Amino acid sequence: MRELRKDPVVGRWVIISSERADRPMDFTRSAVAPDGDGCPFCAGREQETPHEILALGRETGAPNTPGWTVRVVPNKFPALQIEGDLDRHGEGMFDKMNGIGAHEVVIETPDHHARWWDFDPAHLAQVLAAYRERMLDLALDSRFKYILVFKNHGGDAGATLEHPHTQIIATPIIPKRVREELQGAADHYQRKERCVYCDIIRQEMESGTRVVRATDDFVALEPFAPRFPYETWILPRRHASSFEQGSRELLEPLAEMLLWVSKGLHRVLDDPPFNLVLHTAPAGDPFLLHYHWHIEIMPKVTKAAGFEWGSGFYINFVPPEEAAERLRKVMEAD
Amino acid sequence: MRELRKDPVVGRWVIISSERADRPMDFTRSAVAPDGDGCPFCAGREQETPHEILALGRETGAPNTPGWTVRVVPNKFPALQIEGDLDRHGEGMFDKMNGIGAHEVVIETPDHHARWWDFDPAHLAQVLAAYRERMLDLALDSRFKYILVFKNHGGDAGATLEHPHTQIIATPIIPKRVREELQGAADHYQRKERCVYCDIIRQEMESGTRVVRATDDFVALEPFAPRFPYETWILPRRHASSFEQGSRELLEPLAEMLLWVSKGLHRVLDDPPFNLVLHTAPAGDPFLLHYHWHIEIMPKVTKAAGFEWGSGFYINFVPPEEAAERLRKVMEAD
Repeated sequence: MRELRKDPVVGRWVIISSERADRPMDFTRSAVAPDGDGCPFCAGREQETPHEILALGRETGAPNTPGWTVRVVPNKFPALQIEGDLDRHGEGMFDKMNGIGAHEVVIETPDHHARWWDFDPAHLAQVLAAYRERMLDLALDSRFKYILVFKNHGGDAGATLEHPHTQIIATPIIPKRVREELQGAADHYQRKERCVYCDIIRQEMESGTRVVRATDDFVALEPFAPRFPYETWILPRRHASSFEQGSRELLEPLAEMLLWVSKGLHRVLDDPPFNLVLHTAPAGDPFLLHYHWHIEIMPKVTKAAGFEWGSGFYINFVPPEEAAERLRKVMEAD
Repeated sequence: MRELRKDPVVGRWVIISSERADRPMDFTRSAVAPDGDGCPFCAGREQETPHEILALGRETGAPNTPGWTVRVVPNKFPALQIEGDLDRHGEGMFDKMNGIGAHEVVIETPDHHARWWDFDPAHLAQVLAAYRERMLDLALDSRFKYILVFKNHGGDAGATLEHPHTQIIATPIIPKRVREELQGAADHYQRKERCVYCDIIRQEMESGTRVVRATDDFVALEPFAPRFPYETWILPRRHASSFEQGSRELLEPLAEMLLWVSKGLHRVLDDPPFNLVLHTAPAGDPFLLHYHWHIEIMPKVTKAAGFEWGSGFYINFVPPEEAAERLRKVMEAD
């Protein structure tokens, strides 16, 4: 069964995907395969993944052979399936549709043990270029309303494989969290005729207390109301609503900023588990005056507790001003 | 620092509470104190908690001495503080207020190793009576807009102490998740002039596939669009928007249903970590035609992954129909 179902009260869509229960590690409580033995993402084991969709860096040689630097494959245990019609229908008062979508994996490096803070900036820029290329391609399928790019690092952040990878999921609906951002940003724009994220960047740059680092193109900051200790956002300084429709020339400066932030978080928190999510405009509506693409990085140094699940609000015991100061300090020498 | 801060885009309030960083276990990654040695919630160590607010079962003897069956104390590391004014104000475009609120702990039993499925029904009814009494008392403070009752069991569900306990947090705002429920339920009522939860109960009772158990007073079911495998809701069969304003006579039947569900989840998932959240109407507005109080139990058999954090929607690989069937089956003999 692969279905999308909507909660009738709060309108939250859930993927019910019983095929994913076949994944060997889903029911264990600490999930990350500990070493490279048998890792299907390592160089030389290309036959163990579904056929590659994209490979960067392999100048000669057949598809699904070594020599690549970044490789994109379909997820072997996809939450959504690519073939079929949505077939939206009701079940009495409930709403559902077929679990149609794409679920891909970006294998970021052939090296099982590499970490972002060790990456070469040009290599990480290639990873970002792979995100961009896949997003632009998936957006051509009119069934897909949103392309979500996210990275889970560490078992406590939901990763089931240790080898550095990012996931891309294309969904036939705009997820609730994104809809809320779009709505909140549209409300602000209607009142002010300004992008709320541009306003945030301006105020943060003026006060400086929550800014971690600013370059010509990007700013990294601890948000005013962070859910998690050391939650860090990276935003382009010039207004742009879509990551993937933006210029390729921003990929290197973005990679450089991501590496800097990764290194800072590693120095403070010692290889923390984290989730990284790319927030970009909907696939079918990429050019918006009121929305501003950005990256949210959420280290998972504490477990999500019931208060969060029950209420939608969070307890965070590290003020963002302290986190920003600490990050600036540990990176002073660099 | 204890502050409530509001995200300027999505309107989510976050508690920034740097005092809680003093808790010894907050930064460790697996958090539950493993045994009863030095547990401040065990009988005989009453002096190690702040002075008790309520104790049930102690017929003679002074406060803060043994003999109790259920005991309520202020949280030693409160996320919010009880004294002071809200002092709502802005910081440029951002909104904040003082972190005013109550944070209490219900110690459910003197026995460190007890689990709900072992509890005597009359004892669990006492625990529920303690919730009810504290909620009614806290609701008298007009600064508090919502009283949130939740239980974290197991380190992977955010518990930092093993001894069975529940937390109560009174907040000066209505949390986002609750506001969404209230709004969704109000929308349904406006269209249909019926409570959406009453509609859910009727449809589920007619189809039966997601009903785990029904008694005269309560129904336990797997919701149509569950976020988590074996997510289970318990709802009163007759319309009522407030748990705490309801009759005391429902506490025993509710305890009996909670024990049954706990035992079922334990048999299927082997003492799973879980979060339990009581969803009730706002403190200042307890009698609503469109809202229906209920309990949500969320076992944590998988880690929350980036997809969830980034999008507000969830991948669940156990269809609720299968979960309901399994729970009914393992409890057949009882």
